[in-house]
Amino acid sequence: MAPLSASSLDDCLASTQVLAFDIFGTVVDWHGSIMREMQALYPSVDANAFALAWRAGYQPAMARVRSGELGWTRIDELHRLILDDLLPAFGLAHLSEIERVHLNRVWHRLDAWPDSVTGLLRLKKKFTICSLSNGNLGLLTNMAKRAGLPWDCVLSAEVFRAYKPDPAAYLGVAHVFDLKPDQVMLCAAHQDDLAAARACGLRTAYIERPAEFGPTQLKDVSPQAGNTLHVRDMHALADAMGC
Amino acid sequence: MAPLSASSLDDCLASTQVLAFDIFGTVVDWHGSIMREMQALYPSVDANAFALAWRAGYQPAMARVRSGELGWTRIDELHRLILDDLLPAFGLAHLSEIERVHLNRVWHRLDAWPDSVTGLLRLKKKFTICSLSNGNLGLLTNMAKRAGLPWDCVLSAEVFRAYKPDPAAYLGVAHVFDLKPDQVMLCAAHQDDLAAARACGLRTAYIERPAEFGPTQLKDVSPQAGNTLHVRDMHALADAMGC
Repeated sequence: MAPLSASSLDDCLASTQVLAFDIFGTVVDWHGSIMREMQALYPSVDANAFALAWRAGYQPAMARVRSGELGWTRIDELHRLILDDLLPAFGLAHLSEIERVHLNRVWHRLDAWPDSVTGLLRLKKKFTICSLSNGNLGLLTNMAKRAGLPWDCVLSAEVFRAYKPDPAAYLGVAHVFDLKPDQVMLCAAHQDDLAAARACGLRTAYIERPAEFGPTQLKDVSPQAGNTLHVRDMHALADAMGC
Repeated sequence: MAPLSASSLDDCLASTQVLAFDIFGTVVDWHGSIMREMQALYPSVDANAFALAWRAGYQPAMARVRSGELGWTRIDELHRLILDDLLPAFGLAHLSEIERVHLNRVWHRLDAWPDSVTGLLRLKKKFTICSLSNGNLGLLTNMAKRAGLPWDCVLSAEVFRAYKPDPAAYLGVAHVFDLKPDQVMLCAAHQDDLAAARACGLRTAYIERPAEFGPTQLKDVSPQAGNTLHVRDMHALADAMGC
């Protein structure tokens, strides 16, 4: 797909009404937040390896729901299944139920990237802003309250009973707001999420988060064809959207 | 049910984590808002009678969904069905599609009662506050954005696919936040809504809105047994909840 010309881009942006944001990695720093909690709670554990291993279980766990192997299961429960599998390998098999419940809730306590709150506040003045995450509603609400994320509406795979990249999740946002798909823009730090949204007719904005997996293993954030926008961070998105 | 003793009330309030609010009549003034729009748009119409007639169609329309006569239908669509039925009797059969769509959206443009925003901001400092309305997510989000309602999360019958007073709506809030029903308090200006919530184990707060149906037809707001709290307005609720 050729890059959009300036006038086509203006048309796109003028018709956009709702910005839907991926959360883990895009708005909040899951890797750094989990590292910090692990270092404080269990200093003998390799916190970097632990955070990466926990997150690595995420897509396979959702795939078990998508395939029908598991019935509808919320991310809180999936995180817990992965955690219980993971603890022995990190020397934490002795953790009590209370300790496991607390640790699993770290996903409700993730810190925002430094530009997220102020950038979202700018965007909120002109657009309706919502989450569109595979995280469950309670997780996303607790996270937003703690981190100060100013959503107009918390939307989740839980509302649509469909995990991204299922089209029902992306089209569900347009349906909630009685909009055409191209009046909704998905903003995410993951090209596969954006590609699936684009296939449903949504606009897409790629947000660079090179340190998503930690500062020592920078990820490729080079532009890919097809996205409406490619921006460095939330403030660059606000600039591009005329906020 | 005997009134709660002071110490029982303290226990109740200490365990409450989430306040879920009914919207139409409780947080926003549907009657006054619709009156004002009708007077501005169609001054020859009896705006008071029109507002009351539109609202009177609401419970019967939802009953058609609850009974299964209609499949799942959002309030925006139910409001439109009622509106189309109503217009001829008010001399408005000539309204165009565009005019009908605009008028139907008045439910997204309802004004808050004067104490709602400031009272909710006080409550939000100590509790998670959410809507629990039969209104759909888009309606509630647009309303909140326009009126400044500071929800932590917009919840709706649409999320649970069950209209209040279906227990699934009340229990759905507790499930979303992984709480026991008695850790959630429904706050509403309607005793039947509160009674249904109480039957599910939720705490309940009655909020007096004597002018819900207009200042010329004040409604009975006398206390009924069983509610955890009975308060004059949102600030009195914040006082009672120790905010």
